[in-house]
Amino acid sequence: MKDFFKVLTVDDARNKLFANLNLQPELETVHLMKALSRVLAEDVVSPINIPGFRRSTMDGYAVKAKDTFGASEGLPAYLNIIGEIRMGQEATINLGSQEAVKISTGGMLPLNSDSVVMVEYTENLDELTIGINKAVAPGENIVLHDEDVKEKELVLNQGTLLRAQDLGVLGGMGIMEVKVYKKAKVGIISTGDEVVPPDQDPKLGQVKDINSYALFGQVLERGGIPTLYGIIQDSMADLKTTVQKALEEQDLVIITGGSSVGTRDVTAKVIESFGLPGVLVHGVSVRPGKPTILGVIEGKPVYGLPGHPVSTMVIFDLFVTPVMNLLQGGTAIYKPAIVRAKLSRSLSSGSGREDYVRVKLIEKNGELWAEPILGKSGLIFTMVKAQGTFKIALDKEGLAEGQLVDVSLF
Amino acid sequence: MKDFFKVLTVDDARNKLFANLNLQPELETVHLMKALSRVLAEDVVSPINIPGFRRSTMDGYAVKAKDTFGASEGLPAYLNIIGEIRMGQEATINLGSQEAVKISTGGMLPLNSDSVVMVEYTENLDELTIGINKAVAPGENIVLHDEDVKEKELVLNQGTLLRAQDLGVLGGMGIMEVKVYKKAKVGIISTGDEVVPPDQDPKLGQVKDINSYALFGQVLERGGIPTLYGIIQDSMADLKTTVQKALEEQDLVIITGGSSVGTRDVTAKVIESFGLPGVLVHGVSVRPGKPTILGVIEGKPVYGLPGHPVSTMVIFDLFVTPVMNLLQGGTAIYKPAIVRAKLSRSLSSGSGREDYVRVKLIEKNGELWAEPILGKSGLIFTMVKAQGTFKIALDKEGLAEGQLVDVSLF
Repeated sequence: MKDFFKVLTVDDARNKLFANLNLQPELETVHLMKALSRVLAEDVVSPINIPGFRRSTMDGYAVKAKDTFGASEGLPAYLNIIGEIRMGQEATINLGSQEAVKISTGGMLPLNSDSVVMVEYTENLDELTIGINKAVAPGENIVLHDEDVKEKELVLNQGTLLRAQDLGVLGGMGIMEVKVYKKAKVGIISTGDEVVPPDQDPKLGQVKDINSYALFGQVLERGGIPTLYGIIQDSMADLKTTVQKALEEQDLVIITGGSSVGTRDVTAKVIESFGLPGVLVHGVSVRPGKPTILGVIEGKPVYGLPGHPVSTMVIFDLFVTPVMNLLQGGTAIYKPAIVRAKLSRSLSSGSGREDYVRVKLIEKNGELWAEPILGKSGLIFTMVKAQGTFKIALDKEGLAEGQLVDVSLF
Repeated sequence: MKDFFKVLTVDDARNKLFANLNLQPELETVHLMKALSRVLAEDVVSPINIPGFRRSTMDGYAVKAKDTFGASEGLPAYLNIIGEIRMGQEATINLGSQEAVKISTGGMLPLNSDSVVMVEYTENLDELTIGINKAVAPGENIVLHDEDVKEKELVLNQGTLLRAQDLGVLGGMGIMEVKVYKKAKVGIISTGDEVVPPDQDPKLGQVKDINSYALFGQVLERGGIPTLYGIIQDSMADLKTTVQKALEEQDLVIITGGSSVGTRDVTAKVIESFGLPGVLVHGVSVRPGKPTILGVIEGKPVYGLPGHPVSTMVIFDLFVTPVMNLLQGGTAIYKPAIVRAKLSRSLSSGSGREDYVRVKLIEKNGELWAEPILGKSGLIFTMVKAQGTFKIALDKEGLAEGQLVDVSLF
């Protein structure tokens, strides 16, 4: 056991953690219908042209544009209707001069036609003759055979977080399966002699487990798979056995729950017991969350998150989320919206420390104000009432009322 | 079949649709671990006080504050150590005058103590005597028995979209199951004689299905359950059978896929064939998406979405998303982030029509610019390249370069 740990800044602590990790993102192939919100692990190149043939974008008549030049309502151009394109059928008609073919939106243009006149600008003289009231330019009201997507074109980059329209284009290209990054597997171990499961009645001196469920939600929100390992009492042997099992099954292991110095000591000792590098960081200059433990066992991160629920949630985003993003292809699956607001009251902060302040947003006279929610970091309800947090940077000793802050929304 | 439909504004069309719906949100009970991103269907009141006993927020000594008044490094207050609080145990010690009890963060305060002195401000004289270097005020470094959550307090409102911290507080209150709104079930029927499934090779004149998969993704993103009913050819009988089946199984039915006037005619006729009110809206003054059909069958909405993929996605959010939100408890599960940016070029728009413009965001000289992605609404790739859309309002005839627009991000 190392005797002394210097409290590190958030950036230094994160760098130290990352320098000691040995994590490889893993890939899996999923069906199109399971691919939403997953991160692509490969570039996707189109195997085909889309639409694959020249299509009309309007209901009307396929023509040679030059046959319509000069046409107007007063002096229509008269063309011979030589047929109709049926939807979904190959257009085998060969258009001659002064000829027109009836066509619907999405229909295939006949050979030698180069444009479509909208039906609104035509009048049927008889079944075989159409009057055109307005000239079209070559290419008007059509899409070319490769105008949407070109064969061999790079359509989606590796690292893309797949959205609804991306599923659409994959369908359109006929790509039914894609290679994506596997979801990060996160084991959550609760500790603390005072913590009991939520479905158990606490005796005086005991509390129901809050952190496991808040962390469970955070892992899900960030695209990972959480597994709860239950509540382990503050015994070296029991905790070591559980950490060992979680390390075998998971990509990341979080130890949380107890807030006492005893829990923290046991957590640090267990991490150290697996050998080097063991505990890398014991204390970070951040509020809330100072008593954070960051360790690495066999290349995997093991976290001793502070027991206070607010601290646990803040520290999760500073140190767990970046590792989940790394495993999941380097793309953040969870991107909180940021809104700029005016601070409703002055706040002081220790220089050399990052502060994360919970706020409610209030609109006053058409302006958005961020109202700090005061309250100890042990109170989960302050997070429930909050709509987001903002950071007071390391080099700031505080912020004055009315200063602009960027609030990261939950 | 009605002969004439006036093109309605988006608002009028939506109002007409909602006025004819007869939808009741349905509820279900889910376990805490299945409750993330679900919408609460009940107010949640705490059955207990949290933490339930007076707790220390620091490692140190529980004392009577008055015994520390006047204490300083030069003149410490000396108190008798009469014991130690064990984590998770009821504190049965009764503190007398000039006495202190060792306590860890989260430990239960002994009777008659009113504050905790941080260990940093103490020095052990011997095993039985502690020197206090700094006075504490009554209540300092403790949380009261109901300071986080009070018994019978309203903790989470009906309509809350459950976040990670909400799961945490539910765990802390011992509430393992919550009543939530059921996910909206959306049936998606693809039509169009030119549309083939993605895994089938299209002949000339045919295209692979794009819309079903884009819509599938949109339904999922908005918290619903999509079901694909495959591609139905443009025949009244086949489409009616499928719509009937989908209506029995789903809350909402979307007909999409084909872009031709033939498909639209068949869609409208099928909706009408179920009786009144049938087709309510046939044509909306919006670009893209004008040839939208909105109908109601037995109180359920049935949509004829335009065939062009971009139109389909835009119209989905204007008319399907609000109905999904209604069914899912009135709370939007999917809230796109909005960013304000300067328009990179002038755009014209027809007055009396809403325009939805796809854009990329570009940072130039520290400013955010929205660059319109031009291209026909039949091109799905324009949606793939876009990062969001903004609206040109009904009464605007266009926007000038440099004007501020609010971009709704995908």
